[in-house]
Amino acid sequence: MAVEYYDFGPHKIHHSSVFHTTDLSFAFVNLRPSVPVKRVADLTDEENIDLWYIAKKLGRQLESYHKASSLTFCIQDGPQAGQSVPHVHIHILPRKTGDYENNDDIYEDINEKEKELNQALQVDKKKRDRSIEEMAIEADEYKKFAF
Amino acid sequence: MAVEYYDFGPHKIHHSSVFHTTDLSFAFVNLRPSVPVKRVADLTDEENIDLWYIAKKLGRQLESYHKASSLTFCIQDGPQAGQSVPHVHIHILPRKTGDYENNDDIYEDINEKEKELNQALQVDKKKRDRSIEEMAIEADEYKKFAF
Repeated sequence: MAVEYYDFGPHKIHHSSVFHTTDLSFAFVNLRPSVPVKRVADLTDEENIDLWYIAKKLGRQLESYHKASSLTFCIQDGPQAGQSVPHVHIHILPRKTGDYENNDDIYEDINEKEKELNQALQVDKKKRDRSIEEMAIEADEYKKFAF
Repeated sequence: MAVEYYDFGPHKIHHSSVFHTTDLSFAFVNLRPSVPVKRVADLTDEENIDLWYIAKKLGRQLESYHKASSLTFCIQDGPQAGQSVPHVHIHILPRKTGDYENNDDIYEDINEKEKELNQALQVDKKKRDRSIEEMAIEADEYKKFAF
């Protein structure tokens, strides 16, 4: 798909942040399926399969790229689980020995990243923590992955 | 499958704790595939599909049963991500408004539950937090789910 923006719930993702696509899902500097369903239970079987097919492959690549030895996969499925973007998405975080003083601290980071993601998607670009250009640099690195 | 114990990595799970099975996965008072693979990357596509097929359906049932409104799905994929049982498994936690003072506190609980799971699987039964009978009571409730 050669489009300028991808739909992510009510938001638009610039193509330069997107580093891998399938017919049903796409990965940017986060990962989620392209049909705007809010909850895991609303995914069709095909979407569910596609999402975890890409998540498995991508996890392996991210772990290797970041020279990590483990991964945290996490879905905040609904607002009471901390989901702030109403669109199914997986947080995948490469993990290393001693990356956090307490292993639990990673999850504060996931919630922070969820808030950042929400903020990054706001129409008011001034609120963004990273520019489209900065995100594109990271996406360009991940585009080199062999899928 | 009518067996007395199910293999879970190096451990045995008593059949009374198991409330749903497919050819490749089974759910007990936790969820994981029955082939003892340590990491998500090691799952075959068929196992990956099966695992998330059951996780999606089970999540919906657990959320309804516990009168919750969201779900946290989490995989600690490798020891550096807090995995203490070397066998792929998903933690699924029903979430409600105000269930934790801080949303992040849920993850301390996941790590606690992972430790409890590891402890429950130890050969020395005295270390178990819950008896087989107590776990069977919970499993019996979940056996009533329509899959």
